[in-house]
Formats: sequence, C-alpha cells, structure tokens
Amino acid sequence: MAEKLIIFDTTLRDGEQSPGASMTRDEKIRIAKQLERMRVDVIEAGFAAASQGDFESIKAISSVIKDSIICSLSRANDRDIARAAEALESAKRKRIHTFIATSPLHMEKKLRMSPEQVLEQAKLAVRYARKFTDDVEFSPEDGSRSEMDFLCRVIEAVISEGATTINFADTVGYGVPELYGNMLRTLRERIPNSDKAIWSVHCHNDLGMAVANSLAGVTIGGARQIECTINGLGERAGNTALEEIVMAVRTRKDYFNFELGIDATQIVPASKLVSQITGFNVQPNKAVVGANAFAHASGIHQDGILKARDTYEIMRAEDVGWTANKIVLGKLSGRNAFKQRLEELGIALESETEVNAAFARFKELADRKSEIFDEDIMALVSDEQQSHHQEHYQYVSLSQRSETGEQPHAKVVFSIEGKEATSESRGNGPVDATFAAIEAVTQSGAELLLFSVNAITTGTQSQGEVTVRLSKSGRIVNGVGADPDIIVASAKAYISALNKLHSKVEKVNPQL
Amino acid sequence: MAEKLIIFDTTLRDGEQSPGASMTRDEKIRIAKQLERMRVDVIEAGFAAASQGDFESIKAISSVIKDSIICSLSRANDRDIARAAEALESAKRKRIHTFIATSPLHMEKKLRMSPEQVLEQAKLAVRYARKFTDDVEFSPEDGSRSEMDFLCRVIEAVISEGATTINFADTVGYGVPELYGNMLRTLRERIPNSDKAIWSVHCHNDLGMAVANSLAGVTIGGARQIECTINGLGERAGNTALEEIVMAVRTRKDYFNFELGIDATQIVPASKLVSQITGFNVQPNKAVVGANAFAHASGIHQDGILKARDTYEIMRAEDVGWTANKIVLGKLSGRNAFKQRLEELGIALESETEVNAAFARFKELADRKSEIFDEDIMALVSDEQQSHHQEHYQYVSLSQRSETGEQPHAKVVFSIEGKEATSESRGNGPVDATFAAIEAVTQSGAELLLFSVNAITTGTQSQGEVTVRLSKSGRIVNGVGADPDIIVASAKAYISALNKLHSKVEKVNPQL
Repeated sequence: MAEKLIIFDTTLRDGEQSPGASMTRDEKIRIAKQLERMRVDVIEAGFAAASQGDFESIKAISSVIKDSIICSLSRANDRDIARAAEALESAKRKRIHTFIATSPLHMEKKLRMSPEQVLEQAKLAVRYARKFTDDVEFSPEDGSRSEMDFLCRVIEAVISEGATTINFADTVGYGVPELYGNMLRTLRERIPNSDKAIWSVHCHNDLGMAVANSLAGVTIGGARQIECTINGLGERAGNTALEEIVMAVRTRKDYFNFELGIDATQIVPASKLVSQITGFNVQPNKAVVGANAFAHASGIHQDGILKARDTYEIMRAEDVGWTANKIVLGKLSGRNAFKQRLEELGIALESETEVNAAFARFKELADRKSEIFDEDIMALVSDEQQSHHQEHYQYVSLSQRSETGEQPHAKVVFSIEGKEATSESRGNGPVDATFAAIEAVTQSGAELLLFSVNAITTGTQSQGEVTVRLSKSGRIVNGVGADPDIIVASAKAYISALNKLHSKVEKVNPQL
Repeated sequence: MAEKLIIFDTTLRDGEQSPGASMTRDEKIRIAKQLERMRVDVIEAGFAAASQGDFESIKAISSVIKDSIICSLSRANDRDIARAAEALESAKRKRIHTFIATSPLHMEKKLRMSPEQVLEQAKLAVRYARKFTDDVEFSPEDGSRSEMDFLCRVIEAVISEGATTINFADTVGYGVPELYGNMLRTLRERIPNSDKAIWSVHCHNDLGMAVANSLAGVTIGGARQIECTINGLGERAGNTALEEIVMAVRTRKDYFNFELGIDATQIVPASKLVSQITGFNVQPNKAVVGANAFAHASGIHQDGILKARDTYEIMRAEDVGWTANKIVLGKLSGRNAFKQRLEELGIALESETEVNAAFARFKELADRKSEIFDEDIMALVSDEQQSHHQEHYQYVSLSQRSETGEQPHAKVVFSIEGKEATSESRGNGPVDATFAAIEAVTQSGAELLLFSVNAITTGTQSQGEVTVRLSKSGRIVNGVGADPDIIVASAKAYISALNKLHSKVEKVNPQL
C-alpha cells in the first residue's frame, strides 16, 4: 500500500493575498465547499487575526465543512493564536498554523529580533496553540534562506512543544528542486525528533519550478504534505498549483508511488469557480486547467490521436472534470428545477427569500439568453450575493450608444445607499463613457489598472464576465460583473470594485 | 569562465502550433526581430514543408535576421529537407532540424515503420541535410518514451552522419526532472560519439515541470541547448517558457553557473508582442511576465520591501523589461516622430505608402485618445498589416446601442472583396448583435469558441484588444482587433478571424 500525500489547500489564505483577489465570506464558503467536494485534506481558510472579515469567514467555514481539516494561520503570538482558536471553535477537525521568520535577513530587517528571541517566541506559540488543538503546524518563514544550524534548533524545539506538522516554506520562490529537496532531507536527518512530525512543503512559482520543488521536497526530502492553491493563485507568480501536483503524482504514479485522497474530476469546476470569483483568468496554455490543455490542433497529432489515443495524451480531459458546456436550464424551467441545479452545483442560498431573488434574476436572464449553462448560474449567484449585501453602490440600468464618427455616449443609473442617481458622459469608447459617467458622481479618483472580459461559455450568446482592477492609495481591488451585454457587465464590475474600495477593511497579510 | 547555454526559441514553430496561434509572415518577422534583439542564439522560424506560408516566412526571416541562427524543421525525408534548405538559402547562419519518432508506440501506430526502417531514414535524412549546411539538428520524437537501446543506436548513427545537435524531446510532457535528466545522461554515457554533438532539451509543460525538466536535462544530463518559447506558448499546456529558463539560470547562477547570451530586458516586450499577435493572453500569476509577477500587495510584504528590498524580491522588474506605460506620442506628433518611434520599436514598414497609411491611422486614433503609448502603436501596426493585405473582408464602420429593457442593436458596414455591405441585427448584447450582423451576410457558420478583451494599457482611455476564436470544420483560428471602442474592436477581431478561415491554408504540423 502506497503512502498517502496530504493535500493542504491555501487558496483562501495565501491565494487570497494576490493583489485584488480578496473574497467575501460567502465566496469563501462556496470555494471551501468545492474543496471539500474535491476531498482536499486540509483547507487553510484564512488568517483569523488579519481582519474581522477573515475571522468571520473561518468561523463560517468551520461550521459548514465536515470532511476536511480547517486551518487558520496565526503569527507566533498569543493574541493571534487565541483568535485562530476562537474562529475554529465549531470545526469538526481543526488545525492552528503558526509561523515566524527564521532567515537572518527577515529576523534582522523585518522582525528586529535576535535569533534567541525568535526561538523562544516559536516555542511559546506552539505550546499555547496545543492548548486548543492537538493539530498544530509550524512554519519557519523564508526557511529556504535560513541558516541550517539555527533552523534545526528551532524546529527541534517546536516539535518538542508538540508541533505535529513542520512546513518548510520557500517564501520567495528561490528554490531549485535538488537543493530544496536536499535541504529538507538534511533537516530531517539532523533533527533528532524529526520523525515525530509530518513534513510539509510550501513553494512559490517565481522561477517556474514550484511543482518540481514541491515534489523534490517529497521524493528527496521526505515531505508528506504539499501546500498549494487552485490555479496556482497567489502573490507574484503564485503558489504551487494544486491541479498540477495532483495530476503529476497521479500520472507518474510509477515514479512517485503515493496515494492521494483527491477526487480529480472536481479540479476543473474548482478552477472555474476560483477564477470566476477572483477575476484571475487562467491562460489557455496553463497545465491541466487551461482551455487548451487538452486540445490538439496540428494535423499529425490529430492523426496520432485517431490511431492511438495515448500517442499524445498522458491524461484524459474527463479525468480532471472537463466536460462540454451543457444546456442545463431554459426559459421554461421552473423554480424547483432551478433550486435543484443550485444544490447540485453545491450552492446553498441562505433563505427562501434569496432563492426567490436568484430565481427572479434567472428568469430575467433566460428572457435574454435562450440557453442557460452551469457557468451562467454560477455568475448569477455571484452577482446576487454581491447585491443583496446592502452594498454602498448598486447598479440599476444603463443605456449606451456608439457610432463611427461620433463620440460614444453612456447613461448609467445606479443607487447610492438606496438613493438613485443618474449620470451621463461621453468617452473614447462605450466602456470609457460608462466609467466616466459613474466617476462623475462617485468621484473615487481610483486608477484603472486592468480591464478584461471573458465569455463565460462558448457561442455568441454567451455572457461576458468583466474584471475591473482599481487602485487607490496603495489598495488594489478587483470587481467582477457578468451580463450578456458587456457594457452592462463592465458597469457592474466597476461598481463592484468601487464597493470593495468603499469598505475600509484593514487587513494584515502575513506571508509564507 | 562558465560554459554557455544555447537558447533555441521555437515560438514561431512549436508555439505557432497552438490552436488559433497561427501568424502571418509579417507578424513572424516582427517576432523574429524581437528575438534577435533579445539575442536568442537560434530561432526556429517554422517548418518549410508545412505550407507555402511557412516557407515564405522562413525565407523572409532568413534574409532579415543577421545575428541569430535561423532554423527550419523538416521531417526525415529528402523533399522536406530540400524545402528547408531552399527557405534558408539567404540566411547568414542556417540550421536544418530533422526529426523522426523513435518510441514503439509512435513507430508502430503513427509511422507504421519498423525500427530498422526508422534508423535508416534518420541516417539518410541527416546525411542529406549536411549537403546544405554544417549545422544539423536531429530529434528523436517522443524520445522520453523510446527504448534506450534503440535510441542509442539511432543517435550514434546520426552523429556519425554529421548531426551536430541532438535534441531529446519530451513530446507529451511526461517527464520528471530526475528521470529525464538521468535518461539524457545515460544516453550521453552509452553513445560512444556523444561528445561530437551538442545535446539539447525540448520539454512540454503538461505536468507543470517543463522548466525543471529542462534544467535537469542540463545539470544531470549535460545538455547545453534549451528549446523554449515566449510565454511558454505551445500546444496543450505549452512548451518550456523562455523567460522562466533565463531568469532561473540567471537568478540561481550560484547553482547553475552558466552564461547566457540573452538580453533579459527584452523579455517583457517580447512577451507582450507575442501575446498581442497571437491573442494568447498571459495570466496575472504567470512567472516573470505575468502582470502580478512583481507586485506585492500584502501589508507585511510591503513593510518588508521598504526595510530591505531583497526580503521578498529575488529579481528586479526592470531587469526583465518591465517599465511603466509611457506616453510616447500625442495628437500633435508629426510624421517624423511617428516614424522614428516605429524604428525604435523595431517595426519596419515596407514602403512609404505603408508608413503614410499607418500615420493616417495614428492621427485618427490620436483624435480619439489623447495619450498614445507604445502598445497602441504596436496594435495600430498589427491592424494596418492585417488590412493592407487585401483581405477578403474589411471592416468599414459600425453603430450600436443598448438600453436596459430593449434588445441591443448593431449595424455594421464592411467590404467583401472591395464591395461594401451593410448589415444590421439585434442580439442579447451589443457584441452578439454585431457578430450576428456580420454572420447575416458572411454566413460562415463558424462556432465562437472564445471571446476575450484586454485593455492594452492601464487607464479608462485604454484601447480594448479583443480576441475571437472561431472553429469551423475542425479548423481553429484566432482573430485580434484593437480599438478604443470595444464593440468596434470585437467587429474587427471577428472579421480578422473570418479572413483567416477564408484563406484555405492546408498545413501539416509535425510535433516534438
């Protein structure tokens, strides 16, 4: 029987730290449910002490998820740990993950602490965390750039205090497989009580080697837990991509020989959900979850596939959950069919009022779009959840026109704390005119960093999903909006981003 | 003095084989010039026997590029090789790259040849190629799944015939660093004349390990050439990304200790050029060239960076060519300033008539958009080059409107072989209405596979760049269009895709 690899997903914590990827509590719950459906072993649901929002999200996820272990990050201090424990209280299985930087650079420049102080703090933190749960993970931040002797002392001490998982983080994505794997092996060989803990890898993809580094940490270094995110979401070049790890271990079982608990057919739905919620699109040539990952265009290849499927295919698209777009509902579908499909998609609306509101939107959409796909329903619910939360600004209606030789024009109606405002403007395109009309009233002064549109499904009738990234005073937010009319979707996305800027959440994002 | 690693770029050959990524001759020349500016050692410009278009592109690139070696792929037969030699005739330094499959599966199912026949064919091909150039590369297709004994026999034989580079291809992205590196080492150890050739790696990213596999091929296997593409463009999950290889080797010089001839500051311009021409966007969390690759959002990190830059940064954004958008031209800029900027961007228009036409478009754009960036100029030239080639369909003008509660409407004027047609339609959004209007006349019946929009620069005044992917009878094409009005950009992109479908190019795409 092959040993098991533990898949630790940190989409909701490290993934969310990407500029603009912040998610609401409801969005996090939806992703957590999908992770549970995928049978992820550990879900890092957030960092409880970072903000009230993070705390609430972890609390909600703890009470909803039954199968996966729920984890909260915390710095190595009592306040953070107590806060994590409080958020995790109702979790069936809980883990506290505490960390402190151990590299000379970080200790000196960031923490302004001596190595002895760091060692002491780490011990106290793990000891305190163990009062709340038997499942405690410790991470030496910037571990791959730390001094070996000191690292050994810290890790030996925290294992003695009861840390059950030791996570060796390559915080800045500096690792190379051989070196990273060997460093982990050396640690495990030198630390006398290393066999008392499960070892974990946490890599970043700055040099394009996060997956290979993680797997070298397993094969050379003896790690048995891999920390990763859906779509490799994460700061800078992102974290190790869950889907690549799972499919590499599975496809090359002859070499790795590990068991995974993951239901791989849930990978593509998870990828779509995360990209829809965060507005971080997946490039076509992304492994496993990219739109092209399983497409073959060239003459010889197609011929090859006809002659023998495995000539060019080492994985099957359906094994990771790729399916053709299916028409699931239409204009004549009733409330029950709609509700049932929501349940099948794992979307639980909180009250009948919410179901009714979503159903009303569905009927409205079905009037304008004859075929309704799962992706449409997901977009509709995202929209619904955004709007029913008494947002500051709400989209009401829009008219716009453009004609060659004339300046495009847009008129937008939206409400500000329930009070309707109408604004019109010209611009160099209908989107520019729409944004200018909104700005004329809201006066946010935010800078538009990114604007992108993707069709939710194939076919010209598809809804457009617009992502707008705004920056103001150093804060970066993403707004997402979907509509068959991409100018309307743009207005919704812009307003959604303004709402995020309006909510003055101060959040501390620590890093591994 | 550290040894040199040869960077072999195959964006124009293997990259172009991505469904929808096909490029025109002029687009290939622009990319080739950028690759030369980046000081790529070898440019694989295409596969001469694949189509007349490929042949012409290689021929044109051969006469324009002076510093890089120009390479053409060819199957292992006389006709292909002669065609490659003809296309490369004017190249200052030329390489013929010939290949044949050596795995049991491929030989039996695809080639329907015995191993002895394959061996003989390989020898004859290399012998024949050497009549045209001293620089001959040989690739055993699906090498990583071939039988070792047979592979050794084939490679020894082709080196005896004069092959100067042996490329070990992991065609299906099945490799794992340790195994791939060891396989290469074993080959080099077992083949008596292995030191007479330079060894090369060619990996695909299906399991997310193309970069690590390539580098293991170098460190463990002794390869000294890496085949790669800009943005990791390529079929399925793509090829090894050039930018990741270059920055990994450079950032971890302490470990790899190799010299590269590459000017890394040309990486981001190359990435933008390739993504603009092919319509393959780069995801924000893509290493090195993703929009987020160098962004830090979280509180602690920002603090860290302030205290010591290298706390979280292992590379500097400016080292790979990231610069802030710069206003380069405006409404008052004259023809000379425009022409000079074209030259600085490496864009050579063929005649004064073309410069005049592009300048007229520039003035038209400057009337609608006050700040003109380099990206705008690049989009304008792409547009210009598309339209001056007497395309079947040409965009003329458009008017469209949408209003909440009414069905969106579009009227499009375009020409068909010079004859103007006007068509109008309603749709569920202005883009749908626009496409329906065009379809009402053209009746292509093509299926819309993908629709995406990206802003070319930041700010609401930015132009939208639309990519439309159409599929018809198994053929997939991408059309790209740019305009400050995204509905106009959508119409241009759709028409550009229809033109590509209209040109009935039959092309054979072999694979490594």
